[in-house]
Amino acid sequence: MFAPVYLDYNATTPVLDEVRDAMLPHFSQRYGNASSRHEYGRAARLAVDTARERVAAAVGAHPTEVVFTSGGSEANNLFVRGAAACLKPGTIAISAIEHPCVREPARLLARRGWSLHEVAVDRAGRVRSDDFDRALAKRPALLSIMLANNETGVIQDVAALAQRAKPSRGWFHSDAVQALGKILVNFRALNEAGVHALTVSSHKIGGPKGAAALVLDKRVEIEPLVAGGGHERGLRSGTENVPAIVGFGVACELAARQVYDNATRLTRLQAMLEGGLVAQGATIFGLGAERLPNTIYFALEGVDGETLVGQLDRAGYAVASGAACSSANPEPSHVLLAMGVAPELARGAVRVSLGRDSTAEMVDGFLLVLNEKLRQLRGFTALAA
Amino acid sequence: MFAPVYLDYNATTPVLDEVRDAMLPHFSQRYGNASSRHEYGRAARLAVDTARERVAAAVGAHPTEVVFTSGGSEANNLFVRGAAACLKPGTIAISAIEHPCVREPARLLARRGWSLHEVAVDRAGRVRSDDFDRALAKRPALLSIMLANNETGVIQDVAALAQRAKPSRGWFHSDAVQALGKILVNFRALNEAGVHALTVSSHKIGGPKGAAALVLDKRVEIEPLVAGGGHERGLRSGTENVPAIVGFGVACELAARQVYDNATRLTRLQAMLEGGLVAQGATIFGLGAERLPNTIYFALEGVDGETLVGQLDRAGYAVASGAACSSANPEPSHVLLAMGVAPELARGAVRVSLGRDSTAEMVDGFLLVLNEKLRQLRGFTALAA
Repeated sequence: MFAPVYLDYNATTPVLDEVRDAMLPHFSQRYGNASSRHEYGRAARLAVDTARERVAAAVGAHPTEVVFTSGGSEANNLFVRGAAACLKPGTIAISAIEHPCVREPARLLARRGWSLHEVAVDRAGRVRSDDFDRALAKRPALLSIMLANNETGVIQDVAALAQRAKPSRGWFHSDAVQALGKILVNFRALNEAGVHALTVSSHKIGGPKGAAALVLDKRVEIEPLVAGGGHERGLRSGTENVPAIVGFGVACELAARQVYDNATRLTRLQAMLEGGLVAQGATIFGLGAERLPNTIYFALEGVDGETLVGQLDRAGYAVASGAACSSANPEPSHVLLAMGVAPELARGAVRVSLGRDSTAEMVDGFLLVLNEKLRQLRGFTALAA
Repeated sequence: MFAPVYLDYNATTPVLDEVRDAMLPHFSQRYGNASSRHEYGRAARLAVDTARERVAAAVGAHPTEVVFTSGGSEANNLFVRGAAACLKPGTIAISAIEHPCVREPARLLARRGWSLHEVAVDRAGRVRSDDFDRALAKRPALLSIMLANNETGVIQDVAALAQRAKPSRGWFHSDAVQALGKILVNFRALNEAGVHALTVSSHKIGGPKGAAALVLDKRVEIEPLVAGGGHERGLRSGTENVPAIVGFGVACELAARQVYDNATRLTRLQAMLEGGLVAQGATIFGLGAERLPNTIYFALEGVDGETLVGQLDRAGYAVASGAACSSANPEPSHVLLAMGVAPELARGAVRVSLGRDSTAEMVDGFLLVLNEKLRQLRGFTALAA
């Protein structure tokens, strides 16, 4: 029986039943290529158009502002590299806590004549105004500040930052992958504040892997990463992944409809879990900052995060460590280091991220098991000492 | 009831039942992120690894040579742009009949200091040796010649071309998207002849949309299009689309197992269909060249392809025209123009592409309906004249 308690919703989410049911007909019945000019093709095109309307409605954008991509990493790269390709090399400003799929393309630009300013964050993980102003003084042509961080759940006041950046006239992007479905995300409001592009992704909100969108102010000139047949207004060629896009549309609709209820419920579970963690001596990261209602990021002095995650896994609880996920030699989280967390404590980082199926019983169970594992680990350490 | 006869398998294919069944558990049960270090993550990783082995086995490659992407267009762009980014600008040689997702990135390079040689083809659609030699004289750093053309089905002797290109020491890529599942595709053999990279795609062989692979000789240095978490040996970041990759793996296994039977069966239907078309006065494109067993590309003097495709659609037969699929103002096919077909005849081009569910009855039915439509169209034209 394959059913450990899943507490890693920031990594990915199960596909919702409504989403899967909407996708299924597009595999073996309505399987057309959306570019084909026959009944199968038209059905596929209609499905993609409907999904585009749903995604746009969920994030307060116009359907023509939605550019579908294969995932959030691609959408973030499309903005950073695509916009840079249409500009003369200048300054790009990103926060020091961006996801690698923003940071790495920004660093690629830095090797091609661009100047990269990684804006510092404070101890709670918020972008520091003074360093943001230093970045603005360089008149950055491109800016990318995430709406909510994947590790800490800390929310940036992106609208205020964009307002402040307006006079420097750069293109302002925000990675909203972790924000969507957990807090309100409204492109129109952000756009009025000065945000020109937003990344949202399907598999973080109960949709399938394989679909995401760059929501894009049409004034921004972008060179495609994938050139070819001219799909997505020439910004992203390739046969549309119709089932995934359809699923993304349904997931967006559900996420937008349920965001308030979800947030209320999850905030309660988050408080419960954090209370229990603090009682066990944990440090909670991002305390004092506004955070996503589902994310709990903590460390326990003297306990290695990777080891603890392994123990919890064997005990039936699936959570994440703070280490770089695909690295064989885990480094402490760059997010925590940027927040000034000591490397020893950062190595202890564990992330719990709640979602639709999370319950109070699961939180209780998790705290019990954690308590037990800690006693074992610490007893072991005490014996070894 | 939504079931016109589907004769457009080169555009996309229905997902096979075995494929869909293999994918389903990965939506709502084994839904983990393959980078997660818990039970759900390991299950996802294992599924991706197994799929990688299946794809590799189907194309005669080593699993570590398989780089998963979101589609064939991305894989082709990854080769052309990714390899170019690691080289000093030089010459890139492609055939004049490449798919737009090879041609467009090549043309982007041409705007960045590269010299682009589009190798001419003969009247049957085969790469012309004399012009290929002219391209080689420029010592191209990159070459891309497709294995089989999506419109005509004409097969190039890529092994022989790669052999001839060996002394010029460029990286040789071949788009095998239309070849896979229809003829034998063996990367090891092609690699020995001098081919360094191969693109294959899932949704053309009964797999889902959203997965493809660049099969890559490890000596080729490639800069990723999507940088970030370092997935796919750093060549393609982003959460793996596990269900699609799993489906691709199963589809590859089935395609490799059934390629001979399929080819035999389809060759018979192809001959039957072409016999009937010639009897109705059609010109068959690519005659005289070795072609895929499933593709029939024809035109009838004085009959517009788009119009005919529309008529056939309304009569319950889904086929493709030769015009650029996503264009509002259809131009005649660049493939046919490169073959020296007169633009008036090229505007008449219609493509029928057969697949797994195609039968002799469907071919008969198609020929009957075509005959009827032609009489109507020509009668109409005669009346109008």
